[in-house]
Order: sequence, then structure tokens, then C-alpha cells
Amino acid sequence: MIVAGRHNDITDVAGIRVGHAQVEDEGALSGTTVVLAPPGGAAAGVDVRGAAPGTRETDLLDPRNTVDKVHAIVLGGGSAYGLDAASGVMARLEAAGIGFAVPGGVVPIVPAAVLFDLGRGGRFDARPGAEHGAAAFDAATAGPVVQGVVGAGTGAVAGGLKSGIGAASAVLPDGTVVAALIAVNAVGSPADLATGALHGARHGLDGEFDLPEPGPAAAAAVAAALGRHTGRAGTATTIGVLATDATLDKAGCSRLATMGHDGLARSLSPVHTVMDGDTLFAVATGSRPAPDLPALFALHAAAADVAARAVVHAVLAATGVDTPGGSWRSYREVLEEL
Amino acid sequence: MIVAGRHNDITDVAGIRVGHAQVEDEGALSGTTVVLAPPGGAAAGVDVRGAAPGTRETDLLDPRNTVDKVHAIVLGGGSAYGLDAASGVMARLEAAGIGFAVPGGVVPIVPAAVLFDLGRGGRFDARPGAEHGAAAFDAATAGPVVQGVVGAGTGAVAGGLKSGIGAASAVLPDGTVVAALIAVNAVGSPADLATGALHGARHGLDGEFDLPEPGPAAAAAVAAALGRHTGRAGTATTIGVLATDATLDKAGCSRLATMGHDGLARSLSPVHTVMDGDTLFAVATGSRPAPDLPALFALHAAAADVAARAVVHAVLAATGVDTPGGSWRSYREVLEEL
Repeated sequence: MIVAGRHNDITDVAGIRVGHAQVEDEGALSGTTVVLAPPGGAAAGVDVRGAAPGTRETDLLDPRNTVDKVHAIVLGGGSAYGLDAASGVMARLEAAGIGFAVPGGVVPIVPAAVLFDLGRGGRFDARPGAEHGAAAFDAATAGPVVQGVVGAGTGAVAGGLKSGIGAASAVLPDGTVVAALIAVNAVGSPADLATGALHGARHGLDGEFDLPEPGPAAAAAVAAALGRHTGRAGTATTIGVLATDATLDKAGCSRLATMGHDGLARSLSPVHTVMDGDTLFAVATGSRPAPDLPALFALHAAAADVAARAVVHAVLAATGVDTPGGSWRSYREVLEEL
Repeated sequence: MIVAGRHNDITDVAGIRVGHAQVEDEGALSGTTVVLAPPGGAAAGVDVRGAAPGTRETDLLDPRNTVDKVHAIVLGGGSAYGLDAASGVMARLEAAGIGFAVPGGVVPIVPAAVLFDLGRGGRFDARPGAEHGAAAFDAATAGPVVQGVVGAGTGAVAGGLKSGIGAASAVLPDGTVVAALIAVNAVGSPADLATGALHGARHGLDGEFDLPEPGPAAAAAVAAALGRHTGRAGTATTIGVLATDATLDKAGCSRLATMGHDGLARSLSPVHTVMDGDTLFAVATGSRPAPDLPALFALHAAAADVAARAVVHAVLAATGVDTPGGSWRSYREVLEEL
């Protein structure tokens, strides 16, 4: 039987720390989240499945390339501008002497992916930079992870509803932990327009979700929220990190990320569209041994499930916002207002 | 509103023809299916998402490579041995003068993917060859497509239940047609082990599925069928073809295939595992214009749905088999036996 870890978040993978930072300027609705690997680094992979991605340092994750460990992953708002947050994380890691060793110093390896939230707080140019990456680094803890409208989830919207960042973890019967942290910003909807229920809710563990009861009125309200939402290319994007304490190589991490996308498919509809740059990273800390084939199968199946559950938590943890850039209710609020 | 096409299958895309052939030897439970493009060929792409694929002529589908049209796609049983069926299709196409023109003749472009069904009829060496590809070519019609335990679906099993090949189509409000033909052979289950319901059924059009009513007993029966099923690497694999009459280039076809995999994620769980070589092709006949961005978005969303619906039809059209190699009940039979 699969159960959640202690925090039901990505810090249930020992050694993983997470920090958030927000852009505090007036008119801002954006932020950055950093997922820190243990100081020695972690194996990592990526699967870029959406059609409009914004990424940095993903090519080195190709199993054919040299670097075999990352030191942090940055998820952030601000579209391509927000990639600068990784620089701030690199600066902090360099100061700590953490990175890929080269003559004269270290080069911290910090892949990053961004989502589109430009202008949602009213100002198009209020977005995360290096200072926000550094602030997220400074705020990093071993959990529990704050979820909802925070960090990379600050400006996130999904299907016209305010969304955010969410997490979930699974402890497999053999003790292996797999977890996900996902900032949900999608053209598609997390809720079934016919029933009002969250697509991903059926993947929850027993009693996991404190869910308002949907109904026909909820379906209509959810559909109305989506109807107000007009997507354009590159204006969405769901991004996240999966983590496990199993030993996986770079190719194995990429495969784990691939499985996470099945969780997105089950919790967001549609997803991976021309207007989404959906990107999932996966890191393996390797404190447990490499799984044999049946254990790998179980790990993969669980990875899809934790991704779907993390999406549900992102949606349920969100609260509505009202800014000069727009007004978005959360799923909970839409149901409570009925 | 989205409705099904005339046949609710892939031949609703004008110009597409489909033929099946079975291996008739004693101890055989395998076959081959060919999807024929219009004689001038069709743009095509592929997304190989499973970890244990068996394919032929997929590298040329990379948008960076030269050939820009395929003349047929072969889906078949027989694992890597069954790739030979494509040779028989090539021979027929060459005889008809259909192919990529080169000095002295033509080279028919026939990508193929196979699923694992070796030994399911009792004989490991009874599998499709070139003659079965030729027979499938000779049997090809403009529809309706025979579904269930036929062609590439002959030896297919999903989650311990007898499966087969199935199809579905969607006509978008603007008249664009998108359709799928999928042979469902998965380690994972098409049915929810907790409820007995088919995962993909929720994606059906109004009244599309003539579904037995599941219940707790159905869930137990489905779980029992899965329990008898012991997967090994490379012993499963779901394969299929999506088709549309829209104009898409090779990259656009690959993206359409990617969307189809979301339909697999919604209708099979788990899917894309280490034991599945899940591969979807997509072809675009181009009789309608290239979609603008909103139309492309609608086409992509519909592609995921038709793939999920085709999986449901594959499962519902299947009938149980009892061979020297094993015994598999179909989903309908499991529910009817309760």
C-alpha cells in the first residue's frame, strides 16, 4: 500500500530543500521557487512536453552529455525573463563552494523552467530576477513546503481559476519515496467542466483531499471561469520537479519525468498544448539502491500519481486574487460562492 | 460541439484505408494492420513514449530529415519479428508505383510499430511476416474498420484482460476530422481497479459506449484479472495511428501524436512503463487548410480525446480467447459473468 510521506511534499525525499520568493513590487504577481539538491548534487533529467517551453540548462541533462549531477532546479514565473532567477541561485551555490568542480572553482548546475504570468499583477515588467533566486535560496527549508499562491505559483492560473504551486509524496511498500512539486499554470482546466470535480482528485490517497462537494452549479461556475480565460501561445505552462531517493541515472530521471507528464494528463485537460510549455524535471538523490525492474515499474506508476496529486494540491491551496491585471477566483472560492 | 464521424473510426478521414490480416497457423494469436495514406502520401510524425519500443522507419519522421510523406503505417503483433510485415506492404506499394520517387523507381515509405504477443497462441514462432503485410494491404477498405481481436489487436492483452484494436473519430465544429486507430496491449489496466469502470469511458461522446454497468464485484473481477498478469520488460506495448484531414507538417504531426499519448494516459494506468513500448504515429492528409492557433488548440484537445475513446472501443470490442498459450477473458465477459 502506498502512503504519503511525513509532509506529503517533495521534502519527504531526504536531502531536498525548497524555498520560495515573491516579487514584492507594486503591480507584481510573480515569484520563484528553488528546489535544492543535497550539497553533492543529484542525478537529474527532464521531459519538455509542452509546445511553448522556457528553459535553461536542459541540454546538459541529455544522457549523452557530460555533467551528471545538478545542484538545484529553479521553477519560476516571469516567462523567459524569469530565467534570471537561476543566476541568483548559482551565486549562492558558488559562495558555498557547491558546484561542478573545474580548475579555479565550481560551476553550479541549476536547470530552470519558467511559466507565463507576465502582466497578471498589472505590470508586465515586474518579474523575478537574480535577487529573487537568491532570496528563494535563503528561504529554503527541509519542509513542510508552503503551497498555493507562493513562489513559482504566485501568478499561476489554470483554466481561468487562480492556481498555485502544490506538492505530494508517496512512500512505496519497499520504502522508496517519490514526490512532486508542481506550479500549475495551464490553458486547460483542472476541473471537469461537466461535473465540476477536479480531474486529479480520483488519484488521491484515502482522505487526502479536503474537497468541497461539486455539483451541477459547480460545473457551470467552473465552465464560466474557463470561458473568461482566453489563451494565447506561450501564455500558460505547468512546470515542476519530481524527486526520489532511489538511485537513477540521468536517463532514468528523464523517464521518471516522462511518467510525471501522465499525471499532468490525468489532472489537467487539455494539457501539453500549443499554448503550454509544460516541463517536468526529475532528480534522484540515490540514498537508496537502484530499483530492479518490478521496483522501477512501481516507482514509475507512483510518479504519475504523485504528479496528479500535486496538481490537485496546487489548485486546492490557491486563493483568489484581484489585481490591476485581472481577477481570478480559486476553485474553492468558486464552490463556496455557490 | 464535437460529434463522431460516419464510421466513428479512422476511415472518417477521407483517403485513409485500413486492412487487417491474421496469422492463421495453428498456435498463432497475432496479426497485422495497415493504415494506407492516400496514394500521394501523407505528412506524418511519431511520438515514441514507452520504454520498450519496436519500430521501423521512425527516424525519417524527424522533422529535420528529408522525406516528408509516408504511404502507409503498419501496426502489428509479433514483437520485433513482426516488423517484416512492412516489407509486404512495401512490395504491394512498389507494384502500384506508389512511393518516394528515385531514379529507377519508387521507395514506399512505410513506418511500423509492433506490440508484444509472442507465444500467446501457444507458439512463440507464429508471427506476422511480409505475407501478412501484403494480405492486410489487399484487405484494406475505406471502412468501417473491423475492431476487436483482429489485425494488430489479435494477440493484444491489457491489464490481464483480452484486448484488441479499436478506433474513434471526432468532427470538430469547423469540419476538421481527427481520428485514431489503436491496438491496446498494456501492462497497465484499462479499468479502474477500485470501481471496475473503464478509465477512458468518461471521455465518450453522448451515448457512445454500450457499457455494462460496473460495481464492486466488477472491480474485484478486474483486479483478479490483473493479478493473474505478470508483466516483463517489453511484453506489452500500445501502438496506434492518429489521422486528420487538416494540413500539418511533420513537426505538427509529431505534436498530434504527442497529444494522443495524453489519451493513453487517461485510458490506461499505468502506461508508458518500462514494460511498454507505446508508440503513436500521426498522419495528416491535408485536404483541409492548415489550422490557425485556436483551431490547432481544438484539434490537439480532440486528438487526446479520440485516442482515449479508441482505447475504450478496443477493449469493448474484444472477446476472450482460450489458447494453449493462455486464457484471457474480455472486459465485457468479466462483467457478464458476475
